[in-house]
Order: sequence, then C-alpha cells, then structure tokens
Amino acid sequence: MKSIARLADYGKRNWLRALPLVAVLTILFSQKSFAQDEGPSVAEVGYAIDNMMLFIAAILVLFMQAGFSLVESGFNASKNALNIMFKNFIDVNVGILIFWLFGYGIMYGDAIIPGWLAWGGFGISAAGPTPEAGALNPQIDWLFQVAFAATAATIVSGAVAGRMQFSGYLVYTVFITAIVYPISGYWKWGGGWLDAMGFHDFAGSLVVHAVGGFAGLAGAILLGPRIGRFAKDGSSISAPHNYTLATLGVFILWIGWYGFNPGSQLAFVGASNTDAVVLIAVNTTLAAAGGAVAALILSHFVRGKFDLGLALNGMLGGLVGITANCDTVTNVSAIIIGLVAGVVMIGATLLLERFKIDDAVGAFPVHGACGVWGGLAAAIFGGKPFIAQLVGSLAIPLWAFVMAFALFSVLKALKMLRVSPEEEMEGLDISEHGARAYTPMTGAAASGD
Amino acid sequence: MKSIARLADYGKRNWLRALPLVAVLTILFSQKSFAQDEGPSVAEVGYAIDNMMLFIAAILVLFMQAGFSLVESGFNASKNALNIMFKNFIDVNVGILIFWLFGYGIMYGDAIIPGWLAWGGFGISAAGPTPEAGALNPQIDWLFQVAFAATAATIVSGAVAGRMQFSGYLVYTVFITAIVYPISGYWKWGGGWLDAMGFHDFAGSLVVHAVGGFAGLAGAILLGPRIGRFAKDGSSISAPHNYTLATLGVFILWIGWYGFNPGSQLAFVGASNTDAVVLIAVNTTLAAAGGAVAALILSHFVRGKFDLGLALNGMLGGLVGITANCDTVTNVSAIIIGLVAGVVMIGATLLLERFKIDDAVGAFPVHGACGVWGGLAAAIFGGKPFIAQLVGSLAIPLWAFVMAFALFSVLKALKMLRVSPEEEMEGLDISEHGARAYTPMTGAAASGD
Amino acid sequence: MKSIARLADYGKRNWLRALPLVAVLTILFSQKSFAQDEGPSVAEVGYAIDNMMLFIAAILVLFMQAGFSLVESGFNASKNALNIMFKNFIDVNVGILIFWLFGYGIMYGDAIIPGWLAWGGFGISAAGPTPEAGALNPQIDWLFQVAFAATAATIVSGAVAGRMQFSGYLVYTVFITAIVYPISGYWKWGGGWLDAMGFHDFAGSLVVHAVGGFAGLAGAILLGPRIGRFAKDGSSISAPHNYTLATLGVFILWIGWYGFNPGSQLAFVGASNTDAVVLIAVNTTLAAAGGAVAALILSHFVRGKFDLGLALNGMLGGLVGITANCDTVTNVSAIIIGLVAGVVMIGATLLLERFKIDDAVGAFPVHGACGVWGGLAAAIFGGKPFIAQLVGSLAIPLWAFVMAFALFSVLKALKMLRVSPEEEMEGLDISEHGARAYTPMTGAAASGD
Repeated sequence: MKSIARLADYGKRNWLRALPLVAVLTILFSQKSFAQDEGPSVAEVGYAIDNMMLFIAAILVLFMQAGFSLVESGFNASKNALNIMFKNFIDVNVGILIFWLFGYGIMYGDAIIPGWLAWGGFGISAAGPTPEAGALNPQIDWLFQVAFAATAATIVSGAVAGRMQFSGYLVYTVFITAIVYPISGYWKWGGGWLDAMGFHDFAGSLVVHAVGGFAGLAGAILLGPRIGRFAKDGSSISAPHNYTLATLGVFILWIGWYGFNPGSQLAFVGASNTDAVVLIAVNTTLAAAGGAVAALILSHFVRGKFDLGLALNGMLGGLVGITANCDTVTNVSAIIIGLVAGVVMIGATLLLERFKIDDAVGAFPVHGACGVWGGLAAAIFGGKPFIAQLVGSLAIPLWAFVMAFALFSVLKALKMLRVSPEEEMEGLDISEHGARAYTPMTGAAASGD
Repeated sequence: MKSIARLADYGKRNWLRALPLVAVLTILFSQKSFAQDEGPSVAEVGYAIDNMMLFIAAILVLFMQAGFSLVESGFNASKNALNIMFKNFIDVNVGILIFWLFGYGIMYGDAIIPGWLAWGGFGISAAGPTPEAGALNPQIDWLFQVAFAATAATIVSGAVAGRMQFSGYLVYTVFITAIVYPISGYWKWGGGWLDAMGFHDFAGSLVVHAVGGFAGLAGAILLGPRIGRFAKDGSSISAPHNYTLATLGVFILWIGWYGFNPGSQLAFVGASNTDAVVLIAVNTTLAAAGGAVAALILSHFVRGKFDLGLALNGMLGGLVGITANCDTVTNVSAIIIGLVAGVVMIGATLLLERFKIDDAVGAFPVHGACGVWGGLAAAIFGGKPFIAQLVGSLAIPLWAFVMAFALFSVLKALKMLRVSPEEEMEGLDISEHGARAYTPMTGAAASGD
Repeated sequence: MKSIARLADYGKRNWLRALPLVAVLTILFSQKSFAQDEGPSVAEVGYAIDNMMLFIAAILVLFMQAGFSLVESGFNASKNALNIMFKNFIDVNVGILIFWLFGYGIMYGDAIIPGWLAWGGFGISAAGPTPEAGALNPQIDWLFQVAFAATAATIVSGAVAGRMQFSGYLVYTVFITAIVYPISGYWKWGGGWLDAMGFHDFAGSLVVHAVGGFAGLAGAILLGPRIGRFAKDGSSISAPHNYTLATLGVFILWIGWYGFNPGSQLAFVGASNTDAVVLIAVNTTLAAAGGAVAALILSHFVRGKFDLGLALNGMLGGLVGITANCDTVTNVSAIIIGLVAGVVMIGATLLLERFKIDDAVGAFPVHGACGVWGGLAAAIFGGKPFIAQLVGSLAIPLWAFVMAFALFSVLKALKMLRVSPEEEMEGLDISEHGARAYTPMTGAAASGD
C-alpha cells in the first residue's frame, strides 16, 4: 500500500512519464489475479484441498472401526458378540483420549534418544500453519494419525476374542496407544532409525498392521485357545455366528482403506501428488481383488468348498499386503502382491491351526503375516533396498510381539487376562456385561413361532 | 480489452516512453495468472471446493439416517424391528418432499413477522450464484439443510418406539418437517430473534437435536410406557434385541457427525475456514470419546457392570453436547464438554426411569438433555453471552415440546396415537405390516437345527 | 527470467525512464499471483479437485456393493444368506480383475467395428495427463468405471438367488464384466452408435441398471422359480429373513448413488460443472423420495398394509429412474420421475408374479423396468429426442437379455445352472459352502434360553 502511495506522488510530479505506469496499473487492477485480494489466494485454495482431503481420508479410516467390529463379532460365537462390539467401541474412544494425551507427542515429537525415542508434549497445537498446498494443520494431522493408532489397537481384539477379561483389555488399549504403537511409529514415520536407514512403509503394513497382528499373536499364545476350539467336536462352539455382518464388515474395511492408503500421500494438490493418489487407489483395489480371488480358489483345495471366511480374509490380506508399497509398484505388481497375500494369509492360518494357536478372527494371518509380506514386497516389486525392508519388517513385529507378550504376561500374573471357564462357557456377554447381544422374540409374538 | 487498445495507440505515438510498458506487458502475459483465461479462475475453483465439500458433508449427514435406524431398532424388541426401520426409512423420504415444499421456505425465507416467522416460497431456486469461494448454490444448501431437518425428525421415532401407530407417525413427520423444525430453525439460522440476541448454536445442539429430543419426550409422556416396561419382570419385554446393530448404528452416527459439525462451517476455502473446519472435526472427536468413556465408567457404578447401551449413548451425548460450540472451544474444553455430556446423559436416563417415562432409546437423554448442555457449554467454555445461551437453550426445547405435545394430543384424541394392547403385545411388525423383521430357518434347513 | 534481465539492462542505461518500470515490478512481485511459481498452479489445483472428487465418487459407488449384498441377503431366506453374501463379495473382486484385463479396453478403446466394437489394450495407462481442470488420470477414470461395471454385474445375483450354482455364477460374472457390459457400454459411453444417434443416458439407467436388470430377468426365467415360491403355502419358504439388514442396504445404496449420479458429471471445477453436480444431487434425492412415497402409498392398496419391501424397492426404483436424466430435468420433474418410478416398479413386480417369474429381490422391477423408464423420462422431461431415447432404451435391454439368455442356456446345458432340489431345500449355505450364515447360541449359554 505504501509503495502505491509513493508512486502516486511521483506520478503527480512527473505526470507525463507516469502515464505508462498509470496505464499498466489500470490493466493490472482489471485482471482477475489482482481481484484475488477479495477472495482466497491460490495458496489458500491448495491449503483447503490438502487439509480437506486429509479430513475425508481420516473419516474413511475412522469408519474402519465399524468394519473391524463387525468382522470380529461376526466371526465369533453369538454369546460373545456384545462383548466384542463393546471392546471395539471402547478401544477407539479410549485410544483417542490417550493418543491425544501421550501417543501423538511420542510418535511425532522431538528426539530424546535420537532415532529411538521422542517427546513433543501433550495434546495438539492449535495454531494453523502458513496456508499453502502441502501445509497441514496439526489438528487434521492428528485426526488422521489417531485413526491409524486406533486401527493398530483394535486389531488385537479379534485375536483374543471369547476369553479375555474386559478390564484387562482396557489396560491393553491404553498401553498400545500410549507406548507400543507410537514408539515404533516414531522409528519410521516420526523420522527415527528405520526411516534413516531407508526403510519404506508407505501407509503402514508394518507400522500399523503388523503391530496389531503380532500383538494379537502374543495375546492368543498367552491366553491359550478357547475351550473346545481344537476339540474334535469343537468346531461349533467357536463357529462364526453371523457371516452376513462379517461380510459387511469387510466391505466397510475395504471402503475405509481408500482413506488409509491414498490418504497417506498426505498431499493431493500438485500433479505428482494427484497422480500418486489415484495410482495408490487403483493398486489398493487390484491387490484386494487379487487377495480375495487367490484365497477363494485356494480355499477350495484346503477346505474342499469355497470358503467365505477365507475369501474375506484373503481380501483383507491383499489390502494389508499392498499398504506398504502401494505408492511404488505398478498395477500388475499390485495384482501379484494381492494374489501372494491371499496365499500367505491361508498359509499362516494353517500354521496357527497346526500349532493350536487360537486366533479367533485370523488377525495374525491377515495383519501380521501379510504385513510382513507387504514390507518385503516393497523391496521385491518397488525397488526399495532389500536389507532395509528386511530389517524393518522384522524389527517392528518383534517390538510389538515382545511388548505385548510382556504386558499380557503381567496381566496374567495379576489374574486380569482370562475369564474363568464357567464365564467363558456362559459367554462374555452375560458374565462381563449381564446382557445378551441378541434377544429373540418376546411376549405374545414368541408364542406364534 | 478497451484499455489495452488505447494503450497500444498511446504506445505507437510515444514508442520510446512505451518501452517499459511493453516490457511489463511481456512479463505479465508470460505469467501463469494470465493463462487462467483458458481454464477455471481461482474464484471458480474456490466455488467448486466450497460447494463440493458441503455436498460431501450433506452425504455424511444423510448417512446418519442409517445410523439412527440401527440404533433405534437394535435398542428395541425384535417384534418391532421392521416397524422401526420402516418409520426411519419413510420419515426421511416424506421429510425430503415436505421440506422441499414448505420447510426450506419457512426456515430461510423473508420475514413475515420479523424475527418470528418467514416465507421464501416453494421449492429451491435453480439459479446458481456468482461463482466464488463462500457462495453456495441454493441446491446444495438445501441438500445440507434437509439432511438436518431429517435428523431432527427421525430422533423422535426412537422415543415412541414399540407402541405408536404408523399412520400417526406419518402425520407427525409432516408436522415437524413442515412447521416445528423450520420455525425455530428460522429463529436462529434464518436470522430471527434468537440470532439477533446473540444466541450461538453452531451446528444445532438446540436447533436440531433438542427439537427432536424434546418432541420425543412429549411423545413418550403422552403415549405412556410400553406394556411391562416398568414391571418387575418387564426388562425382557423391552430388551434391546440386537446390540451388534445398535453399535454399528452409533459408529455410523459418529461418522455422519463429521458432516454435521465440520460441514456447518459452510465454507472450506480461506485459511480461517480451513482451520476452523479441522478444529471442529477434532473437537467433535474428542467430545465423543469423552462422552463414551465417562458413560462407560459411570455405568459401572450405576448398573454394576460395564453397560454397552449407556456407553453408546454416552458417545452420542458427547457428540450432541459439542455440536453447539465445537467452533469456539479448545480441545481441552471439548474433552470436558464430552465427559460432562456423558454424565448428563446418564442423569437424564435415571430421571426418566424415576418418573416412569418410557423413552425407548434414550432420545431425550441424548438429544434433549445433552442438547441443552451443549447450548450452555457455549457460554461456559466458548465465551458466548450466558443470557443469550440460556434463553436459546430454553426457548427452542420449550417450543418443540409444546408443539409436539399439542400434536400428539390431537392424534390421541383422534385415536391415531397408540396401538391396541393386543397389537403391542403381538408386535408392531405383524399388526402394522403383516410381516416379521426376521424369519428364522425354513424348509429342510430348519429340521437340522 | 531472460526478459527481466533485459529490462534491468535497459533500466541501467535509462534510469529515469525506468523508474515507473521499477515501481511496477515492485508492485508485481508484492502480489500473491507471482508467488504462485513456488506452489501449484491454478491448473494443477483444478486437476486435483476434479480427480479427487471423482475418487470420492468412485468410493461411494464401490460402497454400493455392501448395499446390494445386504438388500439381496435380507430379502431372501436365511438358509441362503451366506451364499448370497459370498456371490456379492466375489463378483466385485472377480469383476475388478476382469474389467482391468478386458472390460475397460473394450468399453473405452479404439474402434474395431466403428460404433459397435472397440479395443484399447489390456490394463490401464499409468501416464497422467497434462494437469488441468477436466483432465482425468486414467487410473481414477478406471476406478470410477469399474465401480459401475461391478454394479451392473452384482444386480443379477439378487434375481437368481436361492437356486443358482456358485460356480455357474462365477462364469456369469466373468462373462458380463468382460463382454456384455463393456460392449453396450461402448455403444453409448465409449462413443459408439447410440451416442452418435444422440441417445442420452447420463449415469446409466440403461447402460448399467437395465443391463443388470434384464440379465437378471433372463436368469430368473431360465432358472425357474424357487421351490414353493408360488405354492399357496410358499410364502414362508422364500420370506425375507432380515428386513433390518435389507433396509440398511437400501440406505447404503442411496448414499452410494451420490457418487453414481453426481460423479458422472466427471468434472467438478468450473461454475457450470459445480452447478450441474449439485442439481444432480438434489434431483437424485427428490426422485428417491418420490419413488419411496409412491410405493409406500400404492403398497397399501396392493398388499393391504404398508409394505416395507415395496417401499424400499420404490426408493431404489426412483433412484434408477432419475439416473439417465438427472442432469437435464428440473426439481419438479425429478419428483414426478420418482413417483412414476415407484408405480412402474410395483407394476413390474405384479407382472412378474402374474407370469410366475421368480425374481428373488425385484432386480427386474427396480433396475430393468425403472431403467427403461429413466431412458424414456429423459425424452419426456429432459427434452432429449424421443426416437433416440426409445431406441437406446430398447437396444441395451435387448442386448443384455439376449446375451444373458444365451449364457444361462449354455450353463443349463452344462448342468452348471441350478442346484438340485435337495440342495435347494437344505439351503445353498450348507450345500455349496458347508456352513451356515448364522449360528445361534452355543455351549452353556444355549441352555439358558
């Protein structure tokens, strides 16, 4: 504003020479670009798109909580359905508060032990950045990140379903969201030692899924199998009680994954970002389909029938497998990664059965085994350094397994891990919550049955 | 264009002096901002973002209809499940047509009795505005608004579930969408007397939720409790028949709320808007978690067990409580607002039980009581004038309660309110629709059970 | 950069005359528009919005798969629920791989027989276009298109539910996604003969829905009705087993349609595009409501009670009916189109019953009959040439019916079409997959029942 005033002064004194200047100013102010002062700038527009798209991605990832709850509930006995929904419902809500208080600061803070441990304070900054494309408001960054933390946390509830105490599960939820997930998350996404060595995990095959899958494996081992799970006549006692809802759950998880993977680009404006996001979306789609179809076909050989449970987990396995590498592989590779993930998932399922480890929904085969596969596939198909991928794909699972094993051991010693056999037989819905998930026809209506 | 031609003339005659001008023009036309004439302008881009984001927000709010239907159905007896789904399904469709015809014109029209009553004509304008950031096409504005109207309307179906006639409910739907909701909506969002006095209700704790919650209370009082609801052995007759679907419903409502609250900013471009939207999204998340966790803990004291039904309603209470003030409070305040909402919801639930008012899903505790809490919290935590918040938080509930009480009284007099005891015992699915929500195994399959 | 340097030289030699130039440059570089070189251009911003919005639309359309599976499963007997979910789950995954391999190349390729047949190669181009508004990355274009292909394919599973072999259905899925859908799709959307003659089908009343609906009709005819479907006491054997989930499915389909219709504009930036998208969204909403309300009222005359099943299909019929013409009609016309669609749907339902054709979910009344209605309505209400609309609304259904009839005949000859009466009576869940969709209470919990 000041420079315009000075020019006007100059113009008055040298009005002839100022003529071209006046003319140019006339043009300038008649141009749209100068009318921008009234509206938002291009930088602000870019800022809006990037933050709003990440907001939408966060919503999709949060929606996955509904998917997990349905898959886990549907794949388990009806006598535990309320308890499973409850765990899934409460782990996200507790996780949100804990990750706000501690987790986010640990995962994305300043180094305390450089590369290994960080701290960035409680809560989230309220100050927005200079608005421009690529700049993320800390609030939306946190929302996206907490959705990932909640995903890692909730995966475990499936593996331990049907026999774990509710209060023990609450302790576990605090532990994983405050400590386990953020620390290994810092190693990679916070810029720690795994990031420094060139390990690539685009959207969290390892950072998110393998953490949940291997923590769940530790829980399943320490809890032991549900009563009757590996008895000859035990199939019915642990039979999936609702395949319809389990399938709906997988559909919802699939939809949510379009926030999980494409959203992890974290920027949407700029041709390279836009092109990356849509490639990631298609790779995610193709790998999911590959996993489902591979598991469908293989299930016929393994089970003698087309098995919906395995096909559903095959799609999830394909989704987990593509998560680490979806930004760096071709469409053809994505299909292959998905197909292999379907095989890996079934292989891990058979292995668990052989060792009589009762993972009630296949959390380890889907999120653990296919998570590791995703990390390795980033080297095989995505050209990432093999050693770094190998180290990352071992270190994070090991960390999660050891930490969860320690916690579940403590809970076991404190008698907070497993419910009594009587409670388990009765079902956790009654024993833990005094209610049933389902109440059949009552009153006069029942007599008409 | 003309000014350029004039300058060219000037240039020819004073070519030496015009040199800097020519040079400047050369620069100008080599700049991207002048290439804009080929593509959309920045203003059009801002227009696209604002209208498309509101479109997405509207979709999310409409999705809440699925959530409400599942919560209400799951929390009620299976013999009424079809009837409840039907009411939820048809109130949104009738509401859409009625709000198109009348409601929108009353809520956002020109004053007839200034501050109290307005009318803007039937239907929606088809003409788009001058495209720029912040300008909303009337079509998308209507879509967002009708989603809110449908929310207010559908809340009532839960409170009156299990004993209200279907045809009476159809009359109620027309009444609330055409008259009750739009008139009090005009008082605030249409620029009426509550808006003039400085009452703040950002996304509708009062305008939407308390309207539904207090209308539902009126219905519950006039209908009286379901048979056996407060009998000693009556718990089973009104027991929630499907906690799995109720939980899914709450997850869907939670997701839908990301359209409800952040979308109510109505503008997304411009740093202040973008920053506001993401703050609102995080506050919404934190309050929901606060409500769920507070209700979880409190439920253990009140019911002796961790109670899923109360925890679910606690989350919804937190969401309702933050709705009025999510734009004007800090993250910490949002958590407190949510925690208090969880307590308020349980308190209101116990109060209803004490007075033997049968609100079949807790519509009043969640939407009524926590709606009022949200309005007051905007004063306590958001710095809004206390008197205005108090007046608004009393006036709207009173309006909705009185109007609904009047309507339900008329329906009662016309014998269109409650079904007969026989029909109620048999279940409304059979008596009203001649069908059951659920048909168990039939044919040869059944014999295998 | 060069021109600036030259100007600086000129300035040095004629410093007095250069003064206005220097001043202007000072202004220029203080303007936001020149800071753009650092960030994305307006063209890139437009590119981001258009591709990201189409991405969101694709997600919504993919979500419809969950809706279809619930509607079809809920509307059928519980003994076939797993089988139906499985078919819906696997047809989208197989369809994705097949449409990637063949379908997309046939539908949007270069002409082989101009106007009738095309081929564009396997897979999808990985190269992004020049980034600007309106330019779509082939990857996201494919994702949106495959979601449509999967919709057409999955419609049939409802019509043939309860008696078709799983392996036969897999063959059908490959056939329709690789050949039937892409070829008639090319006729219109690929720029073939129907497009050349001026046929208008904005989002696929014919191209998508009628293809599914008429293919389903062919299947229903060739399969014959389910055992007991038209027996006097046969109503129970084919009774919808879960209206709650069927209603949820319709809600999800409705939400998904906001991707289907508005997304089909394919561009969102530019005032004319933005305005078109929001008009389409509102028209879609109004027609859906019209269809639901018309079917609700008419159902009372036809069935003697308010019938939820017909009301649900009425909404779907309204949605199908508006799909071809939502971009070209007014709000009032949209309501009328929806109301008529509700009537058309019920008429077609009665017609099928009269001819004892067993379409287990009403796929033909909803997608077939209302699809044709949508094509004709584009002429009646949208001002499109009647002859072209008539030809298109006959040619595509005929193509789909004949092709599907041929395929199902071959499957019948190969004994791959219908399961045995024993298997049908037992239910396809047990006979095809050796499992049940639902397992009731087991263990100690059961004894408490």
